Amino acid sequence: MIVRAPRHYLDLIFAVRGSVLPQVLPQVIGFALLSALVEALYLTGVAVPQLPLGPMAGIGIALSLFLGFRNNAAYDRWWEGRVLWGQILADIRNCCRDSDVFLNDDIRNRVLSSLHDFVSALAKPGDPGAELALDKAQSVLTSQFRQEKLGDIGAMTLLNRLAALGHSQAGIERLKSTPLPFVYSLLIHRTVFVYCALLPFAVFAGAGWFSPILTGVTAYVFFGLAAVTDCLEDPFSDSDHAVPVNALEAICKRKIETAMGQDDLTPLINVEGFVLR
Amino acid sequence: MIVRAPRHYLDLIFAVRGSVLPQVLPQVIGFALLSALVEALYLTGVAVPQLPLGPMAGIGIALSLFLGFRNNAAYDRWWEGRVLWGQILADIRNCCRDSDVFLNDDIRNRVLSSLHDFVSALAKPGDPGAELALDKAQSVLTSQFRQEKLGDIGAMTLLNRLAALGHSQAGIERLKSTPLPFVYSLLIHRTVFVYCALLPFAVFAGAGWFSPILTGVTAYVFFGLAAVTDCLEDPFSDSDHAVPVNALEAICKRKIETAMGQDDLTPLINVEGFVLR
Amino acid sequence: MIVRAPRHYLDLIFAVRGSVLPQVLPQVIGFALLSALVEALYLTGVAVPQLPLGPMAGIGIALSLFLGFRNNAAYDRWWEGRVLWGQILADIRNCCRDSDVFLNDDIRNRVLSSLHDFVSALAKPGDPGAELALDKAQSVLTSQFRQEKLGDIGAMTLLNRLAALGHSQAGIERLKSTPLPFVYSLLIHRTVFVYCALLPFAVFAGAGWFSPILTGVTAYVFFGLAAVTDCLEDPFSDSDHAVPVNALEAICKRKIETAMGQDDLTPLINVEGFVLR
Amino acid sequence: MIVRAPRHYLDLIFAVRGSVLPQVLPQVIGFALLSALVEALYLTGVAVPQLPLGPMAGIGIALSLFLGFRNNAAYDRWWEGRVLWGQILADIRNCCRDSDVFLNDDIRNRVLSSLHDFVSALAKPGDPGAELALDKAQSVLTSQFRQEKLGDIGAMTLLNRLAALGHSQAGIERLKSTPLPFVYSLLIHRTVFVYCALLPFAVFAGAGWFSPILTGVTAYVFFGLAAVTDCLEDPFSDSDHAVPVNALEAICKRKIETAMGQDDLTPLINVEGFVLR
Amino acid sequence: MIVRAPRHYLDLIFAVRGSVLPQVLPQVIGFALLSALVEALYLTGVAVPQLPLGPMAGIGIALSLFLGFRNNAAYDRWWEGRVLWGQILADIRNCCRDSDVFLNDDIRNRVLSSLHDFVSALAKPGDPGAELALDKAQSVLTSQFRQEKLGDIGAMTLLNRLAALGHSQAGIERLKSTPLPFVYSLLIHRTVFVYCALLPFAVFAGAGWFSPILTGVTAYVFFGLAAVTDCLEDPFSDSDHAVPVNALEAICKRKIETAMGQDDLTPLINVEGFVLR
Repeated sequence: MIVRAPRHYLDLIFAVRGSVLPQVLPQVIGFALLSALVEALYLTGVAVPQLPLGPMAGIGIALSLFLGFRNNAAYDRWWEGRVLWGQILADIRNCCRDSDVFLNDDIRNRVLSSLHDFVSALAKPGDPGAELALDKAQSVLTSQFRQEKLGDIGAMTLLNRLAALGHSQAGIERLKSTPLPFVYSLLIHRTVFVYCALLPFAVFAGAGWFSPILTGVTAYVFFGLAAVTDCLEDPFSDSDHAVPVNALEAICKRKIETAMGQDDLTPLINVEGFVLR
Repeated sequence: MIVRAPRHYLDLIFAVRGSVLPQVLPQVIGFALLSALVEALYLTGVAVPQLPLGPMAGIGIALSLFLGFRNNAAYDRWWEGRVLWGQILADIRNCCRDSDVFLNDDIRNRVLSSLHDFVSALAKPGDPGAELALDKAQSVLTSQFRQEKLGDIGAMTLLNRLAALGHSQAGIERLKSTPLPFVYSLLIHRTVFVYCALLPFAVFAGAGWFSPILTGVTAYVFFGLAAVTDCLEDPFSDSDHAVPVNALEAICKRKIETAMGQDDLTPLINVEGFVLR
Repeated sequence: MIVRAPRHYLDLIFAVRGSVLPQVLPQVIGFALLSALVEALYLTGVAVPQLPLGPMAGIGIALSLFLGFRNNAAYDRWWEGRVLWGQILADIRNCCRDSDVFLNDDIRNRVLSSLHDFVSALAKPGDPGAELALDKAQSVLTSQFRQEKLGDIGAMTLLNRLAALGHSQAGIERLKSTPLPFVYSLLIHRTVFVYCALLPFAVFAGAGWFSPILTGVTAYVFFGLAAVTDCLEDPFSDSDHAVPVNALEAICKRKIETAMGQDDLTPLINVEGFVLR
Repeated sequence: MIVRAPRHYLDLIFAVRGSVLPQVLPQVIGFALLSALVEALYLTGVAVPQLPLGPMAGIGIALSLFLGFRNNAAYDRWWEGRVLWGQILADIRNCCRDSDVFLNDDIRNRVLSSLHDFVSALAKPGDPGAELALDKAQSVLTSQFRQEKLGDIGAMTLLNRLAALGHSQAGIERLKSTPLPFVYSLLIHRTVFVYCALLPFAVFAGAGWFSPILTGVTAYVFFGLAAVTDCLEDPFSDSDHAVPVNALEAICKRKIETAMGQDDLTPLINVEGFVLR
Repeated sequence: MIVRAPRHYLDLIFAVRGSVLPQVLPQVIGFALLSALVEALYLTGVAVPQLPLGPMAGIGIALSLFLGFRNNAAYDRWWEGRVLWGQILADIRNCCRDSDVFLNDDIRNRVLSSLHDFVSALAKPGDPGAELALDKAQSVLTSQFRQEKLGDIGAMTLLNRLAALGHSQAGIERLKSTPLPFVYSLLIHRTVFVYCALLPFAVFAGAGWFSPILTGVTAYVFFGLAAVTDCLEDPFSDSDHAVPVNALEAICKRKIETAMGQDDLTPLINVEGFVLR
């Protein structure tokens, strides 16, 4: 996640870190060059076929709407990813508190140690251990309950906390395993490509040497938004824009370690070059 | 569900699997041919009546908005379908855990076996057995409760888990039995049809031999989005884009089988040709 | 609710049942005739005053956005109506299950019989009996609790189910008693009317005898969407598009009757002429 | 709230009650007159400076989008207000039921009487008594619990109902005390004003004496939607469009009075001149 | 938060407090001057290159949509911030009530005093004490529970209230620590900048000396909305538009102090110059 507190105006215009410009520069330059070529041919008298602006504008508006939809869906996924990790943090804290009420210190430490594993596994891509860690925590509760060291209300309260963690875990797995429908990517990337390829033939006569600029700006806006969407779509990727899972993991772990009375705490993750991971 | 991890840019432009192009190709070619015909007649001097671009653009924008709305609603249904199956997975896991605390192994296995049936029935289209499976699980709890082998807190906790499964089940039945209002399909498909049929008469004079391309691209965008919407509208269909119910079913079943101590686990579903079902 | 499984493409273009065309045909024909009249006057040399297309397009886009908003709100109400009835079904099932655990058969039947009345009353427009039916169910619980035949956990669990039914009931009452703000209907119907009345004066010169077609298509799109919205706005009306309350009522009742061990079950509602009510 | 069951089509075109037309008539007439003046000057040969239509359309579309956003937010507030009062009604009913199970009649009446005060205070603008009424209900529960006449499950159940009422109360206070950000009103009202003032200079040449009509219709659409938004933004105002708080208050009170066995019930509020308050 | 009850119409046009005009005035004037310069050069016969209006309108519409999206997301954050503080207020009240039932006065005061610290810490930017305050409240409950002065139902009820506070706290931390993706700011601010810089070259020929006005109004609308978004994006900033955290903090504290029987209550925060903080 990019963190940039003091936003001076010019900073917004010229910042490179956090921008998608490097990613979309090839397309921007490519289509601007195509536009320049068309313009040059036209000025040297070649009978370049001309496109009317009206239907191009219609396609452009339809494209904007669909890009806007996909962007919206991707942002919702990103925010949902952040919300889920925030809920895990809150439920880890609640577990630390509630286990202190209902369990003795030794047993509590065994439960908390499983939650420590749970958080580690959840933060690592492709690690299926979160499931097992919750099961381990529950088996401690089971043995306490069967030995009648844990009352049924206590058991229910703690199991409900584990269930809340399980629901957040399922949410994170859902985001990881289910991308946005691939068909949107295809439809949008193809239409953007065709639109930018046709645009030079619609503007060369009216815009003169402004044509490459117009085409470039249009390509920047459309390819840029498509690239932003590709970034946010997977909130747990290793892109600069992803949810700072490592930082949230460290906060969860420190809480558990403090509750267990450990001295050697997991270090917090710091912002490096404006990026928090 | 289409799964395609490494998205190279050209891959997006030329991928066929997962694209709606094959589905909408007849319309795209049909309207492009109509446009070519109109253009040819015009160039051979026939007095083709001309449509102004302004009102066509107005209809086009209205159409984009309504397509956008319907697409939004279809995507929400698709994602809700995925969320519901994710909740079922989480609640199955919670049931496995909580039943271990409150029930002895033999009784627990009878409850879990009913949940196994529940998941099977829910994943099969048109199978009404999910309802009965939950009833069977509850009747085991009833007999335990009446024999005073299960306390009232334990009974309440497990009944609440069954109730959560019942709510997810109702959600899935809702999506299966209630399509998007048919009237939207009618309104949108008809308007797209009329719009694409009128477009050639609006562009032939201004766009020359670009006309068929413009008409074809417009038809691709509008029919394409309508086709995507038709795919996602029913998240439990057998289309390539549907929620991977079989894969989720297998994960649920393996969890139950593991909890029951079985050796012979349901195999996981693998991605085949980029598609997970 | 219109149910139409095998959607052949031409079926979408020519279907009458489920279409709003009959409803909006007078307006479509009326404005098309107005447009033809304007065109005829113009061609016979009358100095018809002309409107520029630009501002008309502006009004058209604003109109599309507001129609889109109202349509969105109406669809949300329709879906909320469906969700509420789905929750009632799920909670009726949960009540059947939980009452089996905590109550003896005779008492349970008295509670379930009240729920049967609850569902009947809720499905009938203008019947205030749902409220009383829940009160009756609760008074059975009260007497059991006071006679100490029902523990406090059992009482709490069953009261929570009744509370969930009460919340769904309040939601259904809310949708029934609170229409979409009337002011939106006024603003939108008036603007659509004025827009379609002005359109012929904007297109007669450019579109020639296409004018009546353009005006008719525009009227179809705008009046059509307004009519769809009017249909979905009240999800419990007797329109073809309404939530199939009778079908859901029958499913709820059969569940209760089965749980009570009755032989004579309420018949399921079938689809008649593509419509499920 | 405006209630108008049988909506005949012409009724929608000519209704006055419930329309915002009276409110926005000064602006509509004012800008139409300005447009007529500009037209007259132009026709008498004054060199009126002319605005191009393109950028005006651009500003118009941006304006429509922002009006649409603000309208959406206002409608959400209005509906949230209605939902909150519906939840209060449902929770009042639940309290009536649950208190019958867990409390004896005398004590129950003291709790219900506090809830009666709660509803009264919540419906009155600026009355802080809702808070105190809930506190009074709780202090009755406290004394019962300390005298061991109320078990801990009963106490928890009833406290959870009070907590639900407290959350709905907080929601209503939130809507009352937090208007939509003032900055949106400023930005939108100013831009609408400037847009309508510039429009006559964009249409006088093309639209002839249609100019005042076009300007008037545009002003009606934009000022009308802004006025609707101002109405719905505060769902608990005394406007005709507000949530019918008095009617809902009366239904809540009658329920409580009936549960207390009172004979003299609060009269229901009737619709007067299509308006329910 | 800006509070302005009696909104006279002219007040909306000329208000300065609460407007973003001062913030965006430099850009508005800058681009208007650029436009005037281009116009002057054109009128003195310099061959200024001209941009066609069509593609500019396309970019403008795309820009409006993306600004609209970002604005929507920022408003949702602002409202979520307000909702979270409203939930904290409701849960603080619930804690005051429930603790009176289950705890004796001395112990209750120790819990409430921790909640007082919780609210203080949460309202102060960068204070990590909220976490510790909840832990302190829980440790009081733990010792009561271990001394068997607090039953398990009472413990569960109070722990659930603390858990609710913990979830609201996590929500507030989430909003504070996770800004809107920086990449949106970049994309939007850059595109607005480029758009306003190109606009003068698109309108100089058609709009004459209206050009600077058109450019200025466009810059006001786009930069204005971007500035509003920047304000609302961080709901807990010290801007005039932020959520009135201090006022809500004071209400929470007074409730706690009253419940503890203190005489010296935290003073309420008053509106100063239309602003509530």
